[in-house]
Amino acid sequence: MAQTITSTKDIEFLLHDVFNIADLSKTEKFAEFNKKTVNMIVSEARNLAVKEILPTNIDGDNGCAFEKGKVSTPESFKRAYKLYCEGEWLATADPVEYGGQDMPLMLTAATQELFTGANMAFLMYPGLTHGAAKMILELGTEAQKKIYVKKMFAGLWTGTMLLTEPDAGTDVGALTATAVKNPDNTYSITGNKIFISGGEHDLGENIIHTVLARVEGAPSGTPGISLFIVPKIKVNPDGSLGESNNVVCTGIEEKMGLHGNCTCSLSLDNSVGTLLGEENKGLKGMFLMMNEARFGCGVQAFGQAATSYANAVSYANERIQSPDILAFGQSDAPSQKIINHPDVRRQLLFMKSHVEGLRTLIYYVADCFQKAELDSVSDEEKEICRGLLEFLIPIVKAYTSDKAFEICTQGVQVFGGYGYISEYPQEQLLRDCKITSIYEGTNGIQAMDLLGRKLGMKKGKPFMDLLVEMGKTVTAARSVKALEAMADAVDAAKDKLGETAFILGGVAMSDKILDAFGSATPFLEVAGDVVLAWLHLMRANVASTVLGNGVKEKDRSFYQGQISTAEYYMESHLPVALGKMEAVKKTTASIMATPAEAFV
Amino acid sequence: MAQTITSTKDIEFLLHDVFNIADLSKTEKFAEFNKKTVNMIVSEARNLAVKEILPTNIDGDNGCAFEKGKVSTPESFKRAYKLYCEGEWLATADPVEYGGQDMPLMLTAATQELFTGANMAFLMYPGLTHGAAKMILELGTEAQKKIYVKKMFAGLWTGTMLLTEPDAGTDVGALTATAVKNPDNTYSITGNKIFISGGEHDLGENIIHTVLARVEGAPSGTPGISLFIVPKIKVNPDGSLGESNNVVCTGIEEKMGLHGNCTCSLSLDNSVGTLLGEENKGLKGMFLMMNEARFGCGVQAFGQAATSYANAVSYANERIQSPDILAFGQSDAPSQKIINHPDVRRQLLFMKSHVEGLRTLIYYVADCFQKAELDSVSDEEKEICRGLLEFLIPIVKAYTSDKAFEICTQGVQVFGGYGYISEYPQEQLLRDCKITSIYEGTNGIQAMDLLGRKLGMKKGKPFMDLLVEMGKTVTAARSVKALEAMADAVDAAKDKLGETAFILGGVAMSDKILDAFGSATPFLEVAGDVVLAWLHLMRANVASTVLGNGVKEKDRSFYQGQISTAEYYMESHLPVALGKMEAVKKTTASIMATPAEAFV
Repeated sequence: MAQTITSTKDIEFLLHDVFNIADLSKTEKFAEFNKKTVNMIVSEARNLAVKEILPTNIDGDNGCAFEKGKVSTPESFKRAYKLYCEGEWLATADPVEYGGQDMPLMLTAATQELFTGANMAFLMYPGLTHGAAKMILELGTEAQKKIYVKKMFAGLWTGTMLLTEPDAGTDVGALTATAVKNPDNTYSITGNKIFISGGEHDLGENIIHTVLARVEGAPSGTPGISLFIVPKIKVNPDGSLGESNNVVCTGIEEKMGLHGNCTCSLSLDNSVGTLLGEENKGLKGMFLMMNEARFGCGVQAFGQAATSYANAVSYANERIQSPDILAFGQSDAPSQKIINHPDVRRQLLFMKSHVEGLRTLIYYVADCFQKAELDSVSDEEKEICRGLLEFLIPIVKAYTSDKAFEICTQGVQVFGGYGYISEYPQEQLLRDCKITSIYEGTNGIQAMDLLGRKLGMKKGKPFMDLLVEMGKTVTAARSVKALEAMADAVDAAKDKLGETAFILGGVAMSDKILDAFGSATPFLEVAGDVVLAWLHLMRANVASTVLGNGVKEKDRSFYQGQISTAEYYMESHLPVALGKMEAVKKTTASIMATPAEAFV
Repeated sequence: MAQTITSTKDIEFLLHDVFNIADLSKTEKFAEFNKKTVNMIVSEARNLAVKEILPTNIDGDNGCAFEKGKVSTPESFKRAYKLYCEGEWLATADPVEYGGQDMPLMLTAATQELFTGANMAFLMYPGLTHGAAKMILELGTEAQKKIYVKKMFAGLWTGTMLLTEPDAGTDVGALTATAVKNPDNTYSITGNKIFISGGEHDLGENIIHTVLARVEGAPSGTPGISLFIVPKIKVNPDGSLGESNNVVCTGIEEKMGLHGNCTCSLSLDNSVGTLLGEENKGLKGMFLMMNEARFGCGVQAFGQAATSYANAVSYANERIQSPDILAFGQSDAPSQKIINHPDVRRQLLFMKSHVEGLRTLIYYVADCFQKAELDSVSDEEKEICRGLLEFLIPIVKAYTSDKAFEICTQGVQVFGGYGYISEYPQEQLLRDCKITSIYEGTNGIQAMDLLGRKLGMKKGKPFMDLLVEMGKTVTAARSVKALEAMADAVDAAKDKLGETAFILGGVAMSDKILDAFGSATPFLEVAGDVVLAWLHLMRANVASTVLGNGVKEKDRSFYQGQISTAEYYMESHLPVALGKMEAVKKTTASIMATPAEAFV
């Protein structure tokens, strides 16, 4: 069986039928992104992903090599990296003046899904480079921008973020790396950092580290953290490379997966850096990038899930095993493609409904990012989009990564014994995917962010706005007879989510706050469930319209499948979500009541 | 952090307080197994597991080597295997006359949990040996028993089962290996087998393969399958070893985990075997062992989960990160052990409640096995135990392996970034555990077994008997004021499970049978959820009695923790199960209504 990645069918359905991306081409900024161009870009991205990046995925799983402070990436990565950078895929949504493509964010999300679905470990090198460069673009001085951004967007220099230390993970405020100011306004930075993705490797000419450290005499905790640019090789004022900057890689981690991306321990010893942003405002600077980083993490997880699903569909259409249940006992009954067996069909539909639901969520949030910045959008709507974004980001990060892992797990199961062996792609996808629930803030942290920060933000307006958006979809769907029952189900779930949030939010502001936070994760999970139900209703409604307008015979099953997939979600998963909300509403006291000593 | 496995605390609670294993010592067969002896055996098993087997687990993860048809197991396995066999742990529940220990099955389950929790890949070698030997003991002629069983129970010779072929996995009836009868009543067997655990290795003097093949001229499908004993090295009538038997290992699989156990492809070319049981009754013979094999698979999965939980508790008590939520905003607040953070406590309680619930299920089923064979048990009760066993086995296999994987996943999460790196044990446990949802009949097959065979068995008597057992626990718990609410919750869930089964069973007998089987997996899952709720009520009731009788101060939190753990399960998971049952009762038509072509 040839390994594959997702087809473009559902991507195009979303970009055009559901979100009508071509509307953007009415704006000056995106004038050239008409439907044809959009499809061409998606198609080009998929070609590069399938032909050049996917074949490097197994090689990547063999891992990076570490020797005498140097890290070698898998051999096949070199050519793929060159082609990816030459194709100008690293900074598609960024300003043309810095080498970007000024592409709509939803389209960027679509291309990133394809690339990361082909090889997540590989994509992290350009992905982290983009993140670091964008931070310099947002926070840097003109001189810093001029020196770094263009070279990084072109992939000549790569980038990283140095946050974590052995005793400062989730609690970044506990970090101990120090910065001493020099007479020339540079800083000498010293400390040990761990878990640095792409901290040392051989794909670019230089590595630009963005580093969190504490300036001598700064306050303890998060208020004393500053952000610095520390290149691996010093950069002269004219942009040429100077001498080594004492950033030493002391080792790389053996991991569960993601072997193609090196996870480095770095030691800085009076390494020279320049301040990025203001002193002691480093965490705030880093937080500016947080939404994008967490969104990107969701896309990574999603890419693994989408690929696992594509492989599972392909396998289930090829693998022949056991006769039809209806022919039970007939010894001469022919064996079937396993896609025809009810339990396998259920597994695939679990995967399909979650993959398509999550893809819709990701594109919807990309659209919020876009609208929050677009000149043609009113200030009021911008405000709403910013709020939706803030509320949905922890869901995109945590819910997507948890569900993606479940999808990848199911993707192993569809293959049976073959799912467990490395000759087939499924087990690697599962292993690679797992990290996404951990980094960029563990999913537990996301749940606390949702309950503690986002739910009550602006007196709850973002959450109320989300319920209003759901309500609009319900109203639209109710006008279609065949969707009425589903619309009612989503409506009831939406109301119950509102009620659950109200109760849980109340407990969080009472003296039972610890009990409330004990229910933060189930709340995030069920909020995600209801969001997916809403988006499936949206998709079914659009599909119903398309079918009403008439489709080519070969496309009919795709659109009909949208409606039955939504039905499956409403009938199989929404009742479970209602049960979960009953549990969350109870905000059980048992968690904190179980003494630490009882865990033996 | 030192790697560990489960403590004996909960094991002893179950063996003595909940199931009162010492009752068995009133029977002649088990007279010597008083409480002191039982505890000594558990303690000895744990010592061997921790001191000798656990240290081999990481070495095992480095894998087996294959060269020129020979497989080398990890170096550290040799000593561990010797000690395990010398300690006579391979056949603890088997007849003394064949070298067994005639131990109660529940005690065997307890020791196996400890061993497999220390190194699952290692334990498979003696485990499969035991399975093959037991099959020979059950089905073999006196001569076969005499030649093979004692040597296998002593671990001198190991054993395997050769079922799977490339196109005959779940559909074992499709196998093509052939057997030709020789004039001396032996058979010459030819064929290719794959996914053979321990098919070739260096731990014993000989490997005794039990092989499914089709005698020339036999019917197609399952009615034409026979079972054979085919030793790797031919065995002379006096038990001494002869020449090679042409069973050639052609390769071993690269896998997601379980690297220490080789998964072999074997080629048989006129290899000489003897018939085990009757011609064409091979599958029936194999099925005789099915319940035990599937039970064992559940124990394997459970062992990984229990170890992951033990490690997570240990880590959460050591790792210090972030101040208490109640001190939010106080910059000088001290950082806490992460076990004190509500979301981590929730993660641990998820693990605890499922580990302890599943352990109770496993011991309960072991008790059913025991009672079904015990002279002192009435025929009527034996019949009930056999029925409970049949109904619960697919749940022990599938529900345990699925939940164990979730527990191991959570066990990675508790460790944060450290959970993803190989220096810590958590990621290996997750990888090793995954296979248990696939082999011994995929979990989808278990669900079909439960719905298609077990639910309607004897007009539904086993299922009704299970509900009766649940009812007894409810009645007992209701007499304790503090447990009343939980008893009511379990009672309602039990009734709803009965209703769900009635509806689903009805659909399975209608023309909508395919829809019913599309809901087979969710039904198995929710049956497991309700079983766990019932068993938690049982545990809480026992703990309440123990507390009432007075306990040492140092033990108080353990027993109180039983009650709050049960409360957590009832408040956090049972409402979700009720929602799942709503979904199952709908037996959604959407699964089969989504056309195969819609999966793109």
